[in-house]
Amino acid sequence: MKKTNTLIVFLTLSSLLSASLMDDAKKAGLKPIPTDKKELNKLIDNPKNPLNDAKVRLGKRLYFEPRLSKSNLISCNTCHNLAIGGVDGVEVAVGHKWTTNPHHLNSPTVFNAVFMDKQFWDGRAKDLEEQAQGPMQAKPEMAISKKMAVERISSMPTYKKEFKKAFGDEKITFKRIADAIGAFERTLVTPSRFDKFLAGDKKALSKAEKEGLKTFISKGCSSCHNGVGLGGSMQKFPIAKPYKYSSIGDFKGDKKGRVKTPTLRNILKTAPYFHNGAVWDIKEAVKIMGETQLGTKLTDKEVDSIVTFFKALNGKIPTITYPKLPAVTLKTPKPDIK
Amino acid sequence: MKKTNTLIVFLTLSSLLSASLMDDAKKAGLKPIPTDKKELNKLIDNPKNPLNDAKVRLGKRLYFEPRLSKSNLISCNTCHNLAIGGVDGVEVAVGHKWTTNPHHLNSPTVFNAVFMDKQFWDGRAKDLEEQAQGPMQAKPEMAISKKMAVERISSMPTYKKEFKKAFGDEKITFKRIADAIGAFERTLVTPSRFDKFLAGDKKALSKAEKEGLKTFISKGCSSCHNGVGLGGSMQKFPIAKPYKYSSIGDFKGDKKGRVKTPTLRNILKTAPYFHNGAVWDIKEAVKIMGETQLGTKLTDKEVDSIVTFFKALNGKIPTITYPKLPAVTLKTPKPDIK
Repeated sequence: MKKTNTLIVFLTLSSLLSASLMDDAKKAGLKPIPTDKKELNKLIDNPKNPLNDAKVRLGKRLYFEPRLSKSNLISCNTCHNLAIGGVDGVEVAVGHKWTTNPHHLNSPTVFNAVFMDKQFWDGRAKDLEEQAQGPMQAKPEMAISKKMAVERISSMPTYKKEFKKAFGDEKITFKRIADAIGAFERTLVTPSRFDKFLAGDKKALSKAEKEGLKTFISKGCSSCHNGVGLGGSMQKFPIAKPYKYSSIGDFKGDKKGRVKTPTLRNILKTAPYFHNGAVWDIKEAVKIMGETQLGTKLTDKEVDSIVTFFKALNGKIPTITYPKLPAVTLKTPKPDIK
Repeated sequence: MKKTNTLIVFLTLSSLLSASLMDDAKKAGLKPIPTDKKELNKLIDNPKNPLNDAKVRLGKRLYFEPRLSKSNLISCNTCHNLAIGGVDGVEVAVGHKWTTNPHHLNSPTVFNAVFMDKQFWDGRAKDLEEQAQGPMQAKPEMAISKKMAVERISSMPTYKKEFKKAFGDEKITFKRIADAIGAFERTLVTPSRFDKFLAGDKKALSKAEKEGLKTFISKGCSSCHNGVGLGGSMQKFPIAKPYKYSSIGDFKGDKKGRVKTPTLRNILKTAPYFHNGAVWDIKEAVKIMGETQLGTKLTDKEVDSIVTFFKALNGKIPTITYPKLPAVTLKTPKPDIK
């Protein structure tokens, strides 16, 4: 009987502690990806570019469409590769003619990007649709003109039907190309065990992960890494101390010196870290964040604990059927690799 | 009654003609992709690298694996993109550091490559497994060393399990990496209406396509474009007249001046044409082939007819689930984009 009583007391305590941790997490602004489909759809939808199945399908095709680059060789998926965490796994983005990003910027993940307040490291795009227009045209990325992008897609007859299904008529415009890509990207969300926990499943996180979450909140990480995206707001960077690798590249954030907080979802799968991809070791990254942003020297134990919590943020990557894109026609503008 | 009789006579005649065309096609050495799974498996299997589901699955992952390139940016799928006919849609292959193929060679399609007698334009690899070792190591392609390829893959723990399932033990070698890729590539076959026709379905081809097939055979195209692959043998090139675009690149074939005959399967989806990718218009390509290889000046009508037949060679592209690849670890050798 004694043993049973002790067990009951232990379980009740542990349950209460979990419940209080859940509350703490919610108070810290951490929010789950909704499990309810309608609720999720409402959250990820853009009233100016309403989601529909045909648009998402078309957007997927265009996301993988290399003919949307001047060279025919680069697609959105080149730098935001859905096979490897929605990133490219290199420090600095590489595009047309093997040009590296002029500010030495790292490609952020497209997974859960819909939950970011703004897009691009300096937050200059208000949403995914606006963002998608950038890399297509950027000389060091896909290097295509709006005109050529439209000509390329328009030259392949099956696309006309798909635009009609997605937008109501056959008209192919650069904005619609980006809108379809944006619509697809809105669906790239990765629910994780952490979401289950926030939704009330106390067993979704291991004891060590709960400890990590506690440290994460108590140390102040969640003051920037919060919301559904565990990131996504514009924040001054660095705050407390200079950034150790600030000499790599010349990026200094937006006009106010603010940088978009990266999402922590799938963070263990999206190395290297920071806007300039300077750090490969997540533990080093956490340590640096403690110093530059929180003015705290985190102990190794604290860092380990926080990183253990990150395991719970590994989400379920959506299953993607690789598209079968149409063949070029004689009307299709030729690729230019120069 | 009269009308019915005429119809019967017409149908019988048409049926007889189709039957005779089928015979002619078979006599010309044209062979179908077997519909029977066992028969197909026997045809595509390599006794030295026997197919099994786990190996094909692993091979698919490695086919899409950018960490198999020095830069982390290039996979087999970059130049043999399964979304666009198994090719890259550019005249000349582009690889590491945006280097173009030094001989200005065009990337041939990976679809149905299993049916080729040899691999590479000069036929220097005996099979797909041997071929796969080439581009990974080639400086203008993926530019990785055998050692680094093995280190990269070995550093990601889930691969070990997959190698065990595929090969019986966890050992990861460069040969096994290429063997798994080769196994996957062996499954990339695209049965078409032409195969149905050869298998006895007289209605699988339209009247115009049958006419085209007749022209294709009578003009001698099938003297090189034959077998299951409608191509794949090493042939002297050019034979009858100089190749119009021979000044593009310096490729002159193997030691005997022979070039691998490209497959005609999905040929309408794999522009540009020829080893140096000089021609985008399939009609021009057919005309040139008539002159250089057959010493025949094909009329526009004959060219049109042959190209109409090619429609029947558009095959069913296998449906591919885009892989979810493992994350790098701290042990994974870093990418080098230089």
